[in-house]
Amino acid sequence: MEEKFIGYECSVCGQEYSLNENIDYVCPKDGGNLNVLLDYKEIKNKYQISDIVSQTEISMWRYLPLLPVSDPGYEFTPFRNVGYTANYFPTNLSKKYGFKQLWVKDESKNPTASFKDRASALVLARAKEIKADVVVTASTGNAGAALAGMAASVGHKAVIFAPKTAPVAKVAQLLVFGAEVILVDGNYDQAFDLSLRAAEEFGWYCRNTGFNPFTAEGKKTAAFEIWESIIIGNKINDKPINIFVSVGDGNIISGIHKGFIDLYKLGWLDLMPRIFGVQAEGSAAISNAFIAGNEIINPVSASTIADSISVDLPRDGLRALRASTQTNGSYILVEDKEILSAIAELGVEGIFAEPAGATSFAGFKKAINLDLIQPDEPVVILNTGSGLKDINSAMKAVPEANIIDPTFDALISYINAKK
Amino acid sequence: MEEKFIGYECSVCGQEYSLNENIDYVCPKDGGNLNVLLDYKEIKNKYQISDIVSQTEISMWRYLPLLPVSDPGYEFTPFRNVGYTANYFPTNLSKKYGFKQLWVKDESKNPTASFKDRASALVLARAKEIKADVVVTASTGNAGAALAGMAASVGHKAVIFAPKTAPVAKVAQLLVFGAEVILVDGNYDQAFDLSLRAAEEFGWYCRNTGFNPFTAEGKKTAAFEIWESIIIGNKINDKPINIFVSVGDGNIISGIHKGFIDLYKLGWLDLMPRIFGVQAEGSAAISNAFIAGNEIINPVSASTIADSISVDLPRDGLRALRASTQTNGSYILVEDKEILSAIAELGVEGIFAEPAGATSFAGFKKAINLDLIQPDEPVVILNTGSGLKDINSAMKAVPEANIIDPTFDALISYINAKK
Repeated sequence: MEEKFIGYECSVCGQEYSLNENIDYVCPKDGGNLNVLLDYKEIKNKYQISDIVSQTEISMWRYLPLLPVSDPGYEFTPFRNVGYTANYFPTNLSKKYGFKQLWVKDESKNPTASFKDRASALVLARAKEIKADVVVTASTGNAGAALAGMAASVGHKAVIFAPKTAPVAKVAQLLVFGAEVILVDGNYDQAFDLSLRAAEEFGWYCRNTGFNPFTAEGKKTAAFEIWESIIIGNKINDKPINIFVSVGDGNIISGIHKGFIDLYKLGWLDLMPRIFGVQAEGSAAISNAFIAGNEIINPVSASTIADSISVDLPRDGLRALRASTQTNGSYILVEDKEILSAIAELGVEGIFAEPAGATSFAGFKKAINLDLIQPDEPVVILNTGSGLKDINSAMKAVPEANIIDPTFDALISYINAKK
Repeated sequence: MEEKFIGYECSVCGQEYSLNENIDYVCPKDGGNLNVLLDYKEIKNKYQISDIVSQTEISMWRYLPLLPVSDPGYEFTPFRNVGYTANYFPTNLSKKYGFKQLWVKDESKNPTASFKDRASALVLARAKEIKADVVVTASTGNAGAALAGMAASVGHKAVIFAPKTAPVAKVAQLLVFGAEVILVDGNYDQAFDLSLRAAEEFGWYCRNTGFNPFTAEGKKTAAFEIWESIIIGNKINDKPINIFVSVGDGNIISGIHKGFIDLYKLGWLDLMPRIFGVQAEGSAAISNAFIAGNEIINPVSASTIADSISVDLPRDGLRALRASTQTNGSYILVEDKEILSAIAELGVEGIFAEPAGATSFAGFKKAINLDLIQPDEPVVILNTGSGLKDINSAMKAVPEANIIDPTFDALISYINAKK
């Protein structure tokens, strides 16, 4: 463990805990999710911006000086290949919407094709330090795939609890990665509870999103990449950038917020970005609190085509809300049909997003209409996962293909008819 | 066009053609696929190895000095993000098979999640130079997705012909990328013929694999990466490395061969690698010629779970055969069940391969049994595509998950039963 990591702070009551108190997960007093505390002074003494950006490591591990773990090793594995994802400049969308500084950060380039690899990798680095051999989580989606894939790549054992109603295809991916997959004849909450109980009884390390303070620490590396490649890389220092993030459990947006807080407190970032959370109308628990103007996150009965952000009770709702309220951002709601349109619009830039990945872009479009952002402002849109994860939704996003007879005459007729 | 690109040479009759002869595709005399000729002397005068490996570009475009196109631009697009894929060192497999120098090159990290992006990107760079606005291909698989995705990312128009029996899910990906998808009420050969006719009549540029000399030129960049990252990176100079490549049409293996030929002729590579082609038993056209000891590629009636290498008549068979015969390599056949096992074995290293992607690893295992390679020899195995492209096959590769009641007692019983 490095000296830079000094303890935790509860996101609900503000109580701080030192490392000596041996807390693994949430606040003992109120169950609030914990923020990891870093010794910024120590980090500043040891590192300068130039030390970070000059590294040859092309993964999230280039930001090791700002992470609460020591170098985990694992060179030449998928684990070591997470992050430092592509930042695309989508020419046509830039013209279409009149935004001259518009980027799409494509997290589908991660080893298991979603943003969640960042959290799983960091949790596994932590597991190595505390000598936990088994890491467990409840999930059937990207988080489970990410934990299974990352654990496999470093020889760690992963146990995934999922409701037996989980789609077989998603379960297959977990099994290919060699995870112990336990399907529970019950609902997701029962699988979740069983994962917590198993962690407690067997001494397994629990990765559950938000509940484990290190998930957000892994996810914050995306903020570091935006800072290095987009803010510094394009010398953006006259106005804050606007970041659009799809929100389900809320842990991605809170991780990104934490990353920028780290940079700001280090004095390495002049202007705090504005962070916009985008939720599906059918899964709007955090947005509801934003609109109500309070910090009370009530559960909903979620239903949206964007399965990765379909959440009844967000596991990191409070911090997710504050990511927007504390940065002059906003929460934005989009309909499923707007999400499908967004898939098609990103597709014609060569970017294939799953529904939850395209939700952020749908939110960007709505933010323009709501006058929340202006064309001269820089914008970063996060695609959180690959469209290959949900081909069925992709099929709903586009019209069917045309069928012709196998003759040149038929082709001519077809082309003329299209004119 | 740069001076380094000086013409073509027919792979069948050896006839050379200068650029003045304005040949776009195959040999006018016998229809043989054409090798691109480079002026190695000119390249050596202008560049040294250190110029190549010191570049900051982290994509296949770092090898521009060795490619037959000028810099196409297109910065910050998926097009510019192709290649420079991860080389993993699979610890467990290394121990299991006793090979201390074993790498898996993971092409699923490309923007459309397959090796084919390399060819499509280079063909589009060529299309830009010859001012062809529309690029056409016949394909429903990875090549089509790669052309559609790459074309979208640079604002080029792509037309894809496919038989109407093509899986809707694959067609959906083409449509999301905004390609003009024309389904033909006929078989694949009819779609192929129609694509050629359309290219000729409308002046569209035809990407068809092998038929277009630039597909292999794009694919050769994987050889450059193996050379730079594995051969130079690990100072391997006492024995040739052994490269395992899945083979369908044969254009990937012939592209990789071409890459090493370029390096060898430049004097930048001391030992030519041994190249092993791996085919499914149900799609063995090239392997049959290898076994027969001649260069006659007879069509087969192909049937294998590995759809990306299921090919009746390979479009680049001759050059694919020579990639092994001229490098002291071999062709190896594997059964579908061996391909499924290979998916599971790669999975537990955190690498998720489609069946065609895992076929190369199945071939590596067989090569050990056949005594074709020894444990002290360096090995590179190519995973050509993401397992997310074929979830159904993944499900066949692993046993089903267990189901338990949602109680802790049930979990205990399950764990005890497994002991």
